[in-house]
Amino acid sequence: MKFNQKWLAGIYDSDKGEAPELFAASVPGNVQKDYADYKGIDIMFSDNVEALEAVEDVFWIYKTKLEFEAESGDYVFFVAEGIDYIFDIFLDGKKLHSQEGMYTKVELDITEKAKPGSELSVLIHPHPKRPGYHETPRQEADQSCKPPVSYEWDWNPRLLISGIWKPAYIETRKRGYISSCEPFYTLDSALKNAEVRFETVCDEKVVYTLFDPDGNVVYIGESPEFTVNKVKLWWCSGQGDPNLYKWAAESSSDKKEGFIGFRTIRMLCNPGTGGDPAGYPMSRYAAPVTIELNGRRIFAKGSNWVNPELYFGVITEERYEELIKAAVEANMNIFRLWGGAGIQKDEFYEICDRLGIMVWQEFMLACNNYVANPHYMAVLEREATSIIIHLRRHPSLVLWCGGNELFNSWSGMDDQSHALRLLNKLCYELDYDRPFFPTSPLTGMAHGGYTFYDRNTGKDVFGVFQNRRNTAYTEFGVPSAAGVNELKKIIPENELFPITKTKSWEKHHGFSAWGYDTWLCLETDRKLFGEPESLEQFVDRSQRMQAAGYKEIFEETRRQWPGCSMSINWCWCEPWITAANNSLVCYPMVLKPAYYAVKDSLRPVAASARVPKFDWSEGELFSCELWLLNDSNEPVSDTIRASLIIGGCEYELGEWKTGKAEPRTNIKGSALEFKMPKIEKTGFMTLKLITEKPGRSSEYELLCRA
Amino acid sequence: MKFNQKWLAGIYDSDKGEAPELFAASVPGNVQKDYADYKGIDIMFSDNVEALEAVEDVFWIYKTKLEFEAESGDYVFFVAEGIDYIFDIFLDGKKLHSQEGMYTKVELDITEKAKPGSELSVLIHPHPKRPGYHETPRQEADQSCKPPVSYEWDWNPRLLISGIWKPAYIETRKRGYISSCEPFYTLDSALKNAEVRFETVCDEKVVYTLFDPDGNVVYIGESPEFTVNKVKLWWCSGQGDPNLYKWAAESSSDKKEGFIGFRTIRMLCNPGTGGDPAGYPMSRYAAPVTIELNGRRIFAKGSNWVNPELYFGVITEERYEELIKAAVEANMNIFRLWGGAGIQKDEFYEICDRLGIMVWQEFMLACNNYVANPHYMAVLEREATSIIIHLRRHPSLVLWCGGNELFNSWSGMDDQSHALRLLNKLCYELDYDRPFFPTSPLTGMAHGGYTFYDRNTGKDVFGVFQNRRNTAYTEFGVPSAAGVNELKKIIPENELFPITKTKSWEKHHGFSAWGYDTWLCLETDRKLFGEPESLEQFVDRSQRMQAAGYKEIFEETRRQWPGCSMSINWCWCEPWITAANNSLVCYPMVLKPAYYAVKDSLRPVAASARVPKFDWSEGELFSCELWLLNDSNEPVSDTIRASLIIGGCEYELGEWKTGKAEPRTNIKGSALEFKMPKIEKTGFMTLKLITEKPGRSSEYELLCRA
Repeated sequence: MKFNQKWLAGIYDSDKGEAPELFAASVPGNVQKDYADYKGIDIMFSDNVEALEAVEDVFWIYKTKLEFEAESGDYVFFVAEGIDYIFDIFLDGKKLHSQEGMYTKVELDITEKAKPGSELSVLIHPHPKRPGYHETPRQEADQSCKPPVSYEWDWNPRLLISGIWKPAYIETRKRGYISSCEPFYTLDSALKNAEVRFETVCDEKVVYTLFDPDGNVVYIGESPEFTVNKVKLWWCSGQGDPNLYKWAAESSSDKKEGFIGFRTIRMLCNPGTGGDPAGYPMSRYAAPVTIELNGRRIFAKGSNWVNPELYFGVITEERYEELIKAAVEANMNIFRLWGGAGIQKDEFYEICDRLGIMVWQEFMLACNNYVANPHYMAVLEREATSIIIHLRRHPSLVLWCGGNELFNSWSGMDDQSHALRLLNKLCYELDYDRPFFPTSPLTGMAHGGYTFYDRNTGKDVFGVFQNRRNTAYTEFGVPSAAGVNELKKIIPENELFPITKTKSWEKHHGFSAWGYDTWLCLETDRKLFGEPESLEQFVDRSQRMQAAGYKEIFEETRRQWPGCSMSINWCWCEPWITAANNSLVCYPMVLKPAYYAVKDSLRPVAASARVPKFDWSEGELFSCELWLLNDSNEPVSDTIRASLIIGGCEYELGEWKTGKAEPRTNIKGSALEFKMPKIEKTGFMTLKLITEKPGRSSEYELLCRA
Repeated sequence: MKFNQKWLAGIYDSDKGEAPELFAASVPGNVQKDYADYKGIDIMFSDNVEALEAVEDVFWIYKTKLEFEAESGDYVFFVAEGIDYIFDIFLDGKKLHSQEGMYTKVELDITEKAKPGSELSVLIHPHPKRPGYHETPRQEADQSCKPPVSYEWDWNPRLLISGIWKPAYIETRKRGYISSCEPFYTLDSALKNAEVRFETVCDEKVVYTLFDPDGNVVYIGESPEFTVNKVKLWWCSGQGDPNLYKWAAESSSDKKEGFIGFRTIRMLCNPGTGGDPAGYPMSRYAAPVTIELNGRRIFAKGSNWVNPELYFGVITEERYEELIKAAVEANMNIFRLWGGAGIQKDEFYEICDRLGIMVWQEFMLACNNYVANPHYMAVLEREATSIIIHLRRHPSLVLWCGGNELFNSWSGMDDQSHALRLLNKLCYELDYDRPFFPTSPLTGMAHGGYTFYDRNTGKDVFGVFQNRRNTAYTEFGVPSAAGVNELKKIIPENELFPITKTKSWEKHHGFSAWGYDTWLCLETDRKLFGEPESLEQFVDRSQRMQAAGYKEIFEETRRQWPGCSMSINWCWCEPWITAANNSLVCYPMVLKPAYYAVKDSLRPVAASARVPKFDWSEGELFSCELWLLNDSNEPVSDTIRASLIIGGCEYELGEWKTGKAEPRTNIKGSALEFKMPKIEKTGFMTLKLITEKPGRSSEYELLCRA
């Protein structure tokens, strides 16, 4: 039996040994949110979030007078599923436990020590920060197992949160309490039959029940090992149903439940990237980055997940569900859980299991050199162990990864880094069958760019991606401004237009985030279209550019299949309203125009045009190559008709009968050419591809320049 | 007290349960050698080695009537330090032990079971061979932890050996026996003082003594932990002295001894290979492959070690010593112990410690896909654990590596391969501070070519290597014929000249080894110089070509420092007399002309000429670039005068005052040009670089074409 508690929190004066001012605290939640609510601070607006920097380095205390009922013989436990980040737990003033690490569950037997009315308190220490000089705030996180993003990123404000971020409660336990219960399985080579084996810790016999995806009982009995015949496999979205078998383990006093998704997962080398070059010397090949799910090579298409709330502790199942559902509806099949964001709450993975979204989970390392000091290594080992054991049951989880961009120059880690060797070792020991990457990108893979026009070379995304042959594009972005409604929520009215570099715009990453106006692209907009006449016009142009850029990259990377096997943009959502960002979903749940463009580009079967560049002028010979993209597991064929619409006139470009595209195979078709007519005014033109069969037509906005 | 035994061996008839014919067996040794000696087979000559294929798949048995003296209270052990490869041990007909794996020591307590005169026998099972189709014999080794080279390589005949390859004896042990004793140490960051800690298993107190490299006692006492101040570091050859501290651990009845070499080792990224490219997307960097010894970046120059005997069990300390000493004299500082050859006997590592040769040790995986079947993984785990614990005490050992060319297409393993993840994990757990490579080559590194003219592109080694920018060249070769004296030992007299494809030449790899005449290069020789007039003339030209090729590659790779940090040719020695091979040392200990050329090229300080190609014709504009190579830890300068000697005439090319080359830094100097004069006859010309200071002058043989 679980008893939730009422909590108060406050700033703890460690000199005096007390918290002079207490306020109501939400558990799960973050104490900084409770404090801001108590003080009436709306961190979303303007530069208000800075108000919390004043209390960044304090101790916080949570207190509760315990409320629970225990029968004679019951064991009484205090359970906290996650406390962020360094903390002590006291019962009636006596220290019971100290810990560093937010991912390792706390379970304290307080049977003899606690009674209703006892005071339990949790003292949260200040955030760890590497002392000394560092170029960026995130470097303060380089010996910490907290999500580094809270230390500040170029789309996330500085906001170091902490507190009881997962459920915490008093639990009474009787004989028959099931301390742990986890199913494992082995599929035969034909993927037909599964040997299931439960590992259970309980002081009495347990009855196991397994239900198939239709709810029929396929096993009931006391044996923890049994065979399931003719299993329905778990598939990612677009390849089949995400079949789940519900299980229950029941003792006289307890019941645990969960799901099994039967599937196999491997990481294979990409065809065409492993061939021997002519002549010596020879180096090694690109790392294997093609997901093989149930023996089938899958093109992974999706997005980088970042925390959808600054106050991560308050996130709910509903928030997860709306965000993940939108990705399924956008024809995505994977989220990369970028290391900067750490690990999500349990509901995230449960929803991914249920909806068929594959999860690439990184450990909480990003863009730093995590040097292997003994204290850091001990915390990392304990936290990673907890994470692996906690998450390995999820069929959606297809890949462990050490963290983000650790082998790049701004991080400086490498294959010999002990932290990454430790993570590889732990994954091997605790989760043998799941692949492990030390970091992303690996050899052959690529991250970036993050702008429509490359910051170094000036090339547009069409030129950049059509000239690359990477095995996986696991980060790339095109920014846009937030919608007008969203901007009004964060920027004071008098600063909205004309847009200038005010503190509100800066705080929300419109300026001074990774360069002058990299995300807002004011200068680029001016160069292409001239001075915007209104905020509405600027936002419209910005969002259409983002849509055009993302459409090109997602389709080009699909066209490079099977040499390229992953296309995962930066990023999906955002933790608060940014003035401008690469996200497809504006906080909290506003779908940008680019979302719909990407949704179209990721349809299992779609007509696609390979246009060599974005920007076309009068008199130029416009050209494009037609493709039929097919990620589905069926053969398809179609007839595609192409036309260009410029200033209200439609010009026919030609038609292509595709012939048969084999399952999960694209085909390249006709190259079309057309002399650009006179252009009255610089603006967008539209390339239309109309298919004979429904649901496969495509439209592209390109620039026509007067 | 150890008691060596007299052994007999024979082929064991498993149907009858007996060995009808026994012969004297050497322990340590290989039973196939004993058998060949008994039968009078000289495997070196012609194709005689094939005679042993007839007994390849038999069971062999070793037998001995035990001879030892034990006092009352003594424990009696049978110890075998290594038995190759699957075996059972019987005492008076009763099975005591079964094992697969030649690197895990056997220690059997036979106190109650054995008495002098008891019969101890070791039954060796046939070699494991993967059944089914395979393209090459070596693929039979893909589930075996034997050195794969015995299954046949293109310079090693098929000769599957087995037997008691390391010492085996009866050992009587008293109270005070030291079962294990191993020193560990931690150096402070200034590399001045070391904390030493012994881990010892003994049932009584032990007294430890440590002597400095001059033989002075620096510690004596019962505490297994103590500090050594002002340590003299262990350095590789060319960088300092390979200082060793001798230790002894003594109990009432036993004494163990060994050496500590204090040093730190890391693997760093190569400068110039980690820079960010302009523009996105960005992939990862080259793997770190610069050895940092005691905080100093080292250019690793050396050779690939292969087993210097086909009958590996008979190799002696003297054989190791002469081979390793010759490498030190050739200015080398590293051996790569190629995975195909497995692990050497203890004496090898002891000599490397003593002479300052760094050791890159691979596990026994090469050019196969070692699939993670449970039986193979269990044997690999046990064997690798034994190897790591046995070898980690050696300061010369600077790198563990999973095996050879496992990430190349002909192998098909990759970062996800469980066998390599297991090895990484074991090295991490058992030998935390020593770097680990999953295989060679890694990203950025290169293997090959193995011929003077590239087999695919026809380019000479000058063109190939001057146009590569790899981080490490850890295999490259230029072949030559064996010397005339050696050829006479393996080829029947009537087949010696003119050279034709007879079975003797083929068996010794002159023909049909990796192509028609890839190692012998008869066709290339004919094309360059015309039909050879005698065996002597052919051998002379072949060996001079090898010398010229190796000289160019070693110096070019040195010139690429610090972008390139390793230059390790294929290969050092050979297991028998090959008719032609890339080795620098012909079996057993004949130094080829290329040996002396390489020795010159690897001098710590040397004048070097970068000549764009090998082959020059009359009237052409000859050009070369002068360099001063400096691997030493001192600044150097010199004046270099260059001349070209063609047909007896010496032509002055110019002079360069080098200026100062910083420690471990090369400098590039003048580019010189010269119009080639009339050439009477195609042959060698000599480019001479004369330095002002002694010992740095260089000579190059190049082709001048009439």
